[in-house]
Amino acid sequence: MSNLDSVYSKLTIKTGAKLALVVLDGLGDIATAAQGNMTPLEAAKTPNLDALVRSGCAQGRMIPVAPGITPGSGPGHLALFGYDPIEFEVGRGVIETLGLGVELKAGDVAARANFCTLDAAGLVTDRRASRIPTEVCERLCGILSAKLKKLGATEVIIIPGKEHRFVVVFRGAGLEGPLTDTDPNREGLAIAEAKPVDAQNAGQKKVAKLVADFYKAALPLLANERPANGFLMRGIAHQPNIPTFEQRYQLKAAALAVYPMYKGLAQLVGMTKVEGPSTIAEQFERYVADHDQHDFFFIHYKYTDKAGEDGNFKAKVKAIEDFDAALPILLARKPDVLVITGDHSTPVAAKGHSWHPQPVLLHSALCGSDKLERFTETGANQGSLGIFEAKYLIRLMQANARMFDKFGA
Amino acid sequence: MSNLDSVYSKLTIKTGAKLALVVLDGLGDIATAAQGNMTPLEAAKTPNLDALVRSGCAQGRMIPVAPGITPGSGPGHLALFGYDPIEFEVGRGVIETLGLGVELKAGDVAARANFCTLDAAGLVTDRRASRIPTEVCERLCGILSAKLKKLGATEVIIIPGKEHRFVVVFRGAGLEGPLTDTDPNREGLAIAEAKPVDAQNAGQKKVAKLVADFYKAALPLLANERPANGFLMRGIAHQPNIPTFEQRYQLKAAALAVYPMYKGLAQLVGMTKVEGPSTIAEQFERYVADHDQHDFFFIHYKYTDKAGEDGNFKAKVKAIEDFDAALPILLARKPDVLVITGDHSTPVAAKGHSWHPQPVLLHSALCGSDKLERFTETGANQGSLGIFEAKYLIRLMQANARMFDKFGA
Repeated sequence: MSNLDSVYSKLTIKTGAKLALVVLDGLGDIATAAQGNMTPLEAAKTPNLDALVRSGCAQGRMIPVAPGITPGSGPGHLALFGYDPIEFEVGRGVIETLGLGVELKAGDVAARANFCTLDAAGLVTDRRASRIPTEVCERLCGILSAKLKKLGATEVIIIPGKEHRFVVVFRGAGLEGPLTDTDPNREGLAIAEAKPVDAQNAGQKKVAKLVADFYKAALPLLANERPANGFLMRGIAHQPNIPTFEQRYQLKAAALAVYPMYKGLAQLVGMTKVEGPSTIAEQFERYVADHDQHDFFFIHYKYTDKAGEDGNFKAKVKAIEDFDAALPILLARKPDVLVITGDHSTPVAAKGHSWHPQPVLLHSALCGSDKLERFTETGANQGSLGIFEAKYLIRLMQANARMFDKFGA
Repeated sequence: MSNLDSVYSKLTIKTGAKLALVVLDGLGDIATAAQGNMTPLEAAKTPNLDALVRSGCAQGRMIPVAPGITPGSGPGHLALFGYDPIEFEVGRGVIETLGLGVELKAGDVAARANFCTLDAAGLVTDRRASRIPTEVCERLCGILSAKLKKLGATEVIIIPGKEHRFVVVFRGAGLEGPLTDTDPNREGLAIAEAKPVDAQNAGQKKVAKLVADFYKAALPLLANERPANGFLMRGIAHQPNIPTFEQRYQLKAAALAVYPMYKGLAQLVGMTKVEGPSTIAEQFERYVADHDQHDFFFIHYKYTDKAGEDGNFKAKVKAIEDFDAALPILLARKPDVLVITGDHSTPVAAKGHSWHPQPVLLHSALCGSDKLERFTETGANQGSLGIFEAKYLIRLMQANARMFDKFGA
């Protein structure tokens, strides 16, 4: 725990306040000439959000990781949850596993894997095995799972994903990542050996041996399959040991997310996963219903990011307007501290995640009014929160919930 | 290398993009009543810059070193080049030597020196030897150079500067700085002994002995000179071991500077010095001509700083207007990422460098538009880049050049 974290921790008092963090995935955007010099937030009709802003809100922009760094969903959300994503790096295998809805335990080592095609000499001829259908992947994972439940004392868990993708989890004592990939990264080469990144690390050495044993046992089971007679493993890493959200903030947190990836990320920090809702309106209804059972609500909305990734300006505007239409359900039982933001920007013009600081809006009895008319990127540039690192967001929410004692006399 | 630097380094990919950093030295300023409440940037007529801004730019302000710290040209430029000037401190002797156009090698120890007047007892009676004319300085340096080419195995290089100033470089194995000054800092005292700052450091001890030997051999050669019969040495330091710009950013960089100091600073980080151009128009023309030969162009313009130092508002406005008039030459072959900024502020009202964060403008296909009409200090306060430390500037330029992979999944 950093010195500053221990200061926050010592100052924390429980107040019974309700806090809600609403994440419009990839919300942030940029104004370009092709978009009439407007961002989707600026172009969208958001009467409910506008009314909230005019009732008194603080705005600002957040740097998700560090200047210029474009985060994936993992680091983006870890930062929102207040965990420095440079300090708490989560391996791709872990994220992929969480994304498939698998619960990981501390110490588990997970790898993303994909079926591939090998020639008679054992060289990779197709790194994705012609993207076999998902059903084939499920059947092959079934074959491996049936025979490979354990390697020595270590439990092996194999979960199929979409098309050629699956994940492998090793569960046992004394395991650690990360390891190098077995994917040679191009065709014509043999499957590589998974090597410890730190050659002195006993846990990594143990996993290197497990991976080698796994290949030895699994490859013969696939020998007669075509085109998927081999597999490659990447992002071999352990579930990091992360202090829970409740340990960190003294807040019991619930996650209202629809997509497995975000449920998984919330679980990684110990939030309670709330199953059921499948639309933003249902998520808000469930927040209202469960209001008294948790202190903190993480509510995740995916469609802004999807539209950004597709480079679809109209769809992103529509996603924001759909969100706005549902907002009154949440506001009917307004939390004491409400934040609406993104985990990063996904500009339509970039057709993907970006480094641009995402806009953030904070509403509470003590947030003060920035005297802005709307919640937009351009407006947020002038807000009282300024530009700050996303990892401080929950601290600001706690402050607005009066959860911090005065520091010093 | 810091943890964050190693993250940036791992994410870096080469893209072939062209980046240009145009530095108007001392550009930043403040609005005062005496100046009609305008900064020079606000008062200047800059039609070309205005058009660039309206085409879509991001603006902000940069803290050159740390809040309240006024940088010299060395730290100001090191920060712009992305080297934390607190971590990479470059001795004044090194900067002065670079400023005289002398190429330093790794491990060289350089000192700034000035001729002084000593009385019969060896006490300093004039620390600047009545500011002797430059020609006299050159003659005296010639006398010393002729007799003092080597001290043991160490090469000695003596280069005259302006008036009473010169520099001394020791080149040999196992040398290190810094050492204390031999300048007693006031008249009436004897020349001080140069002492290792770290008494245990073998390299510093070796240089201390070299300086003592240098005095022993040099003072007799000046004994009959008047008024310059002695000299004082300050800022005795070694050329620091700095990772090159190309190592840090995977960008081949060229420096288009007119003044030796800025060429020297660029060389310190391994940029290629482009000789020839002597006006900003010629510098831009050379950028266009050399466009395909480098990835990164550092273009330095001195006259904004000069006018600020002189406290001459009109001259600073004129310097900005002259720059604006030449700008179309650069824009005819617009780099993929263009930054226009200063290395620090030199407010007319301060008649010198200051700590005020300098305004910065960034243009790229993905910078977005801040919807500002002009590039000014007051406008930059509302820009999407916010106020950030100058050492992150090149990281933002790399991001805009799409030189970073996504961080995490």
